[in-house]
Amino acid sequence: MEIDGRRRVVVVAVRPVVDVEPSLTNTRHAVKRTIGERLRVEADLLVDGHDRLAAVVQFRHADDQGWSEVRMAPAGPHWPDRWIAELRLPKIGRWEYRVEAWVDRFATWRHGLARKVDAKQDVTVELQLGERLVTAALGRSPQPFDAAAALDDGLARAMTEHPQRTHATLSAPLPLLVERPRARASAWYELFPRSFGTLRDVIGVLPYVAELGFDILYLPPIHPIGRAFRKGPNNSLTAGPNDPGSPWAIGGPEGGHDAIHPALGTLDDFAALVAAAAQHGIEIALDIAFQASPDHPWVTQHPDWFVRRPDGSIQYAENPPKKYQDVYPFDFETADWKALWDALTGVFLVWAERGVRAFRVDNPHTKPIAFWEYALARVRAKYPDAIFLSEAFTRPLLLHELARVGFSQSYTYFTWRTTAAELRAYCEQLTQTPVVEYVRPNFWPNTPDILPEHLQLGGRNVFAQRAILAATLTANWGIYGPAYELCVAAPVPGKEEYADSEKYQLHRWDLAAPHSLRALIAHLNRVRREHPALQHDRTLRFHRSDNDAILCYSKRDPDGDDVVLCVVNTDPFHVRAGWLELDLATLGLAPDTTFQVHDLLGGGRYLWHGARNYIELPPEAPGHIFAIRRRSHREEGFEYYL
Amino acid sequence: MEIDGRRRVVVVAVRPVVDVEPSLTNTRHAVKRTIGERLRVEADLLVDGHDRLAAVVQFRHADDQGWSEVRMAPAGPHWPDRWIAELRLPKIGRWEYRVEAWVDRFATWRHGLARKVDAKQDVTVELQLGERLVTAALGRSPQPFDAAAALDDGLARAMTEHPQRTHATLSAPLPLLVERPRARASAWYELFPRSFGTLRDVIGVLPYVAELGFDILYLPPIHPIGRAFRKGPNNSLTAGPNDPGSPWAIGGPEGGHDAIHPALGTLDDFAALVAAAAQHGIEIALDIAFQASPDHPWVTQHPDWFVRRPDGSIQYAENPPKKYQDVYPFDFETADWKALWDALTGVFLVWAERGVRAFRVDNPHTKPIAFWEYALARVRAKYPDAIFLSEAFTRPLLLHELARVGFSQSYTYFTWRTTAAELRAYCEQLTQTPVVEYVRPNFWPNTPDILPEHLQLGGRNVFAQRAILAATLTANWGIYGPAYELCVAAPVPGKEEYADSEKYQLHRWDLAAPHSLRALIAHLNRVRREHPALQHDRTLRFHRSDNDAILCYSKRDPDGDDVVLCVVNTDPFHVRAGWLELDLATLGLAPDTTFQVHDLLGGGRYLWHGARNYIELPPEAPGHIFAIRRRSHREEGFEYYL
Repeated sequence: MEIDGRRRVVVVAVRPVVDVEPSLTNTRHAVKRTIGERLRVEADLLVDGHDRLAAVVQFRHADDQGWSEVRMAPAGPHWPDRWIAELRLPKIGRWEYRVEAWVDRFATWRHGLARKVDAKQDVTVELQLGERLVTAALGRSPQPFDAAAALDDGLARAMTEHPQRTHATLSAPLPLLVERPRARASAWYELFPRSFGTLRDVIGVLPYVAELGFDILYLPPIHPIGRAFRKGPNNSLTAGPNDPGSPWAIGGPEGGHDAIHPALGTLDDFAALVAAAAQHGIEIALDIAFQASPDHPWVTQHPDWFVRRPDGSIQYAENPPKKYQDVYPFDFETADWKALWDALTGVFLVWAERGVRAFRVDNPHTKPIAFWEYALARVRAKYPDAIFLSEAFTRPLLLHELARVGFSQSYTYFTWRTTAAELRAYCEQLTQTPVVEYVRPNFWPNTPDILPEHLQLGGRNVFAQRAILAATLTANWGIYGPAYELCVAAPVPGKEEYADSEKYQLHRWDLAAPHSLRALIAHLNRVRREHPALQHDRTLRFHRSDNDAILCYSKRDPDGDDVVLCVVNTDPFHVRAGWLELDLATLGLAPDTTFQVHDLLGGGRYLWHGARNYIELPPEAPGHIFAIRRRSHREEGFEYYL
Repeated sequence: MEIDGRRRVVVVAVRPVVDVEPSLTNTRHAVKRTIGERLRVEADLLVDGHDRLAAVVQFRHADDQGWSEVRMAPAGPHWPDRWIAELRLPKIGRWEYRVEAWVDRFATWRHGLARKVDAKQDVTVELQLGERLVTAALGRSPQPFDAAAALDDGLARAMTEHPQRTHATLSAPLPLLVERPRARASAWYELFPRSFGTLRDVIGVLPYVAELGFDILYLPPIHPIGRAFRKGPNNSLTAGPNDPGSPWAIGGPEGGHDAIHPALGTLDDFAALVAAAAQHGIEIALDIAFQASPDHPWVTQHPDWFVRRPDGSIQYAENPPKKYQDVYPFDFETADWKALWDALTGVFLVWAERGVRAFRVDNPHTKPIAFWEYALARVRAKYPDAIFLSEAFTRPLLLHELARVGFSQSYTYFTWRTTAAELRAYCEQLTQTPVVEYVRPNFWPNTPDILPEHLQLGGRNVFAQRAILAATLTANWGIYGPAYELCVAAPVPGKEEYADSEKYQLHRWDLAAPHSLRALIAHLNRVRREHPALQHDRTLRFHRSDNDAILCYSKRDPDGDDVVLCVVNTDPFHVRAGWLELDLATLGLAPDTTFQVHDLLGGGRYLWHGARNYIELPPEAPGHIFAIRRRSHREEGFEYYL
């Protein structure tokens, strides 16, 4: 037996923690935070008997030699045995934290002494005991060491500062990943560069993207496109000589995942775009799609990275009876899997070297989970500021698992959650359950692959409504533009696909079209920047409304006073009105307060009182984003609000 | 890197599982079950892409060499990716279980083939692929291997029976403790043997205990009692020469924890009692109280097992300003802790050798948690049928932790939960949260230390009510008798202690007193034996009542049809009446059914219909325990119920 039985304190349930799973690598996965967020660590500390305890949280960055520590405090009488500390993590990268707890012999002794003194018992022997404790800790003790000296508050403070951690118990360290703030709060704009010309031409679009307020400009694959089985417009099986092909059919004679399509430009052009974007406060994100066209160099260089069929042909992608002959999936069960993993990891690394730190990963749920764990950790080891958005349009558990093994953000089912009840239930799943420690949802109302039914049918109103929802329900959102702000709604009949999809043909966009939602979107992103409340997910709370089409929710900045209250009409066809039942405590308001709600979208100011308040929302202006303003003072009959 | 990247299946959240804690020994603690219970194992199985999976739960007893296995099945469309299997554990002791999951290549291939055949695609190459799979698994394949042969159900069954587990993923094994059924369902009766004379005299009380229907007769410590600082009646500081002293002041010149008080008899007398009890289907439980009187042999043999104060005296027990000079606690921080742990563990072992297999442990929360983990495991290693009841009248987390490290059952706060709302909330905490996997509550309405206020004030009605609640809310219950059935209610004024407590003086009990509740208690224990529903905790469900004093709950036998519905008036002073709102699905009843409820206590039969039914309970007959009987058939205007 290796233990020391004199360690009497048991440290239970240190949290936050991501569940231990028997993963392939048997590592515990990391809780995620960003710089500037606080980490509230809790643990249950147990000891036999009635002894007093003391505890610290110890924490260190992967680069640190020693541990820093913060003292824990009891969580209060409603939570017996629960202790709490808050950390600030000033640096991105991997951290670990653990709890050390011990019997506080002086505090235990002092508590008993005080009771005995109160009961007027003889404390001669107790004082001898206490004097030993004090001398051991401080090297000396007050003289004479009588009851008054022993119970002195200054002595208690000195003893707290010199804790004797005999037989202390140390919990197993837990991992923590600290990312940059944009991993937590970001606004993504996706466009097909070829519709604007070359990468140099995209530089000309940057002012527009900046005006819309997006942080990240995300480009579908910019690599050479295969010729074999190239798809024509509307996914037709045969392409004409001038059809550009799908950017996801990656690889041609000009190169593979590390090359740039000659029609888009050169590596220098790419560097110029990255630099120009940075001037606008925008970073370029690339789409990482791990599949190959039949013309990809790896098909001949590494034939064993693909499945060969009995007839000698290479297995193309399929979802029977559908066939995708223009795309070869990689064979992750190849005996040469290590080389394949490293080559794919290398794709991230080469683009990171070229200045990219944000990656949108295509269909990660069709590649092994363990591969992502491996690749993302290796990229982060070299580029700790890399962030990864998982296009996991898949079942919830698989989505969560991809986040658990390392993706910074994830696409979600928001795209198909449309009623107020669905949205509430879904958002509560994402933000009020343990997955909030590692899943960061990113809400997209559309993508080049998905024109959902409600966008096809609801007209401009529903585009406005879905933008408001996506931009405020979660701290990360994105759109595929300019199709989105221009309210493009024509589908392939009976499908959730765009007619004349930009995936297979070039478009020319009229960015100045009068029906564009560019003003609304710019407004939304400005409000998001100005209100830290909207840059966090875990403080999302819903409030009741008696109209089932009206969704009401608030967010609070966990580190400050900012509170935002949103009310959205999810019915794109009708005016909806009703009474809200606000949870005032969540809004930081006392019961029966009068307060002002200031609509950050429309500009209106309304005086509300207490929990029940009336709301009316026309479908063409489907949302309020209210700042809550408390009354600051009253003067000559006028009331002033902060 | 030690992993094989071709293992694509990820096994997540195998359950049930007791949370991993950084315990002293860093072991994962065991889920608890008893022989005859099923273990439903669930896991989430994830794989990239659309491949079909197959999985088994593997399990083995500590004595087994190899693993047994049971095939897992998908949990159904409402639980994507969740898989389930049920095990039966036929043997007590420690088990472990784990999940093995793999890509079912044949099922995946067959599914694709069927779709391609439906779409009338050429499947020549697919059939070649399939033939390889079949030959690899079965050593041969049907000839000709055409689509009909490939899709044959018999072939699919044969392939299921010969799974190719290439690149299978194995989860980490989880521990499971299987105990005997009495660990799950038991009725304990505590009496002070000295009040009846000697251990031989207790043999004469066995028919009475058997009539009351208890399984376990539990004796407070039967060891020699110290003379030094012996307490007199009502815990007075000085004992008269004939005062017997508290049985918990253990140890005298005649011996310590392994000896029997000479006034109670000899080891032979004890053996005779154990044997006679067994004749009545009763087992003897001993109280294990780890503390010593100043006269305990260990005080001189092992002075370093006790704390010595600066004045040379040994530290007696205290809870300042209270002092307990008749009791010395052990010093678990002694350098000689290993010897102390082994000596204390030896106390269990010596009594187990003498035929005792049920131990009630006194104040376990004042001895280190790690010690219990050590001691209980060692006792079970030699006596796997030993069960341990923890007297953990302490804060919830510490109570749970003691259960987690090994106690079979635990005293609870039931003793002080009196309103219907309190009882419901408390029972839901115990049975509808993860602690149900390792905490088995044992409800005691009284103990020699606790005469709760409601028993002092409520008269015989409240004794009846609390017995019904304790006997039906949890599968384990106990009373301190004959004080309980004789409704002894006189307290030390202002305290929850018995006046003239049997702890310090002898009593003579009139077991035949006409006001005794012996008939009710015998009835309760008979109903508990006849209804397996009452022998389980995890199927406890509450039903609504519109009278806040009426508590309504049901239990179901997880392995059979037995359903019991209890309705209890928690008001000992007034008739309470109201409408119940039954959750019919929980009771196994269709909506709008007519059913008979048959009161197993009072004998009455009532015809009820649907969810809303009326109930009226006088305080002197405060509970119904209903068996639910569905209509079996109707004949000539009469209805018959099963």
